[in-house]
Amino acid sequence: MTPDEEECMLGSEGLPLTVEALRAQEVNAILGPKFGQEHPSTDLVVDLHSTTTNMGTTIIVPESDVAMAHAAAYVLHECGGEMGEVRILMHSIPKREHRPNLSSAARHGFTIEVGPVPQGVLRHDAVEKTQKALNKLFEFLQKSNEDQEGIMAELAKIYPNGRVPCYRSALAKIPGQMSGKIAWPTDDENPNFPKWMVHKSLQDRDFSKIKKGDPLFLDLGGNIITYDGSHGEEVHLIFVNEGGYYYQSSGTGIGVAVASEYDLTTARLPPRKD
Amino acid sequence: MTPDEEECMLGSEGLPLTVEALRAQEVNAILGPKFGQEHPSTDLVVDLHSTTTNMGTTIIVPESDVAMAHAAAYVLHECGGEMGEVRILMHSIPKREHRPNLSSAARHGFTIEVGPVPQGVLRHDAVEKTQKALNKLFEFLQKSNEDQEGIMAELAKIYPNGRVPCYRSALAKIPGQMSGKIAWPTDDENPNFPKWMVHKSLQDRDFSKIKKGDPLFLDLGGNIITYDGSHGEEVHLIFVNEGGYYYQSSGTGIGVAVASEYDLTTARLPPRKD
Repeated sequence: MTPDEEECMLGSEGLPLTVEALRAQEVNAILGPKFGQEHPSTDLVVDLHSTTTNMGTTIIVPESDVAMAHAAAYVLHECGGEMGEVRILMHSIPKREHRPNLSSAARHGFTIEVGPVPQGVLRHDAVEKTQKALNKLFEFLQKSNEDQEGIMAELAKIYPNGRVPCYRSALAKIPGQMSGKIAWPTDDENPNFPKWMVHKSLQDRDFSKIKKGDPLFLDLGGNIITYDGSHGEEVHLIFVNEGGYYYQSSGTGIGVAVASEYDLTTARLPPRKD
Repeated sequence: MTPDEEECMLGSEGLPLTVEALRAQEVNAILGPKFGQEHPSTDLVVDLHSTTTNMGTTIIVPESDVAMAHAAAYVLHECGGEMGEVRILMHSIPKREHRPNLSSAARHGFTIEVGPVPQGVLRHDAVEKTQKALNKLFEFLQKSNEDQEGIMAELAKIYPNGRVPCYRSALAKIPGQMSGKIAWPTDDENPNFPKWMVHKSLQDRDFSKIKKGDPLFLDLGGNIITYDGSHGEEVHLIFVNEGGYYYQSSGTGIGVAVASEYDLTTARLPPRKD
């Protein structure tokens, strides 16, 4: 390591950077720069993710990115019927500068999230689902490059009313969080260890709906903690019992989503009702 | 840390000890000593485990430990009907001095293994399964202490022929391994990263039977590698795609087991046929 590189390990306030922040700097050097010029050097980042939760195949694209909204609509249709459990989750933070994800380093970002997969384990079925969605994305890009009008006509046929079914994160209720989560309390001495467990009735039931009063957690005494309606009378839960969300740094808790639709032409979500 | 403690961090050959070896020394100081006296200070260690694999509730007891064989038989019957997918795996290494598990530190050892659970995640359903087996073990110990003849009569009624269904590990084929495993090849530069994936037809199908010629792995080129009959024409697979077994130090690969029965009176397995 050169002295210059050592310099880089200190953040803007002179504090040592985390491994994640260091990796972000490396990625930015390769794919970016994310900030300070209109067009980063990279056109598209496809981010392949796994999750410990039963999210099936979830395609995550940002609001207002028309090209990615088209791509997601195509992949949803191509993978949805045959594989089942394919869904689109649209980030409702349009400006990529405000999103901290890998896919925000490039001009366009497309995330393929597949679960359930334990950390540190390769599951053949999950790899296949990822490959299938990735291949369909490439197919879409190829078709777009060759015949833009043709692919638009194809999408118009699939979505005659011009609206694509999707989910969006509920509004954040906790300051500093990007999207809505229902947090569990953590151990007094370890902020990364939950004090409550996710109730078994929700386990593996990502995208299912809960309403106010439904079981949500179990405390150490075996008491059931119910949903208090904090994000609306009825909400969909996502990333239910995600291993990564046991870490305070990722924002502990269960994700909350709202069913929606985006406009195929504008890639915009309707005004919020939550 | 005192100089004495620092001394402890060097093994018998003057090499630094691993975290696991250090923890084993600490555990031995609390529960043991495992070696050098006939009766360790602890009567019974109950070891609660989770696994990324679909092992359901698996009770692991050592061969020739009559008390634990009785306990396992009781728990199997009490939990088996209602919960399903409860099985006994009998260690065929009778002398506890030759087993490296936590439960071998005490005079008697009883392991409750529950899966699938990703590492670093609490699953309510898995916690309940663990609790249920643990409670039934305590119930057995209580009954044994209060009325030894009564509990023996109860077991004789449940197992009229005196034989308890169980699994045993197949014979090790790889020098240094305690039990039979089918290893996958690993990356040239990282012995903890598999070069092949477990074939999807086996995923989550722990304890199911495979026969020579059945798909076992998938290589990077998408080619299927079949079972070559190395452990017998037909075998049961256990710990299928276990996250912990990606580590060379734990012995990489899929576990191989043979269906068997143990004698309720002697806690002995029949002579090996494999």
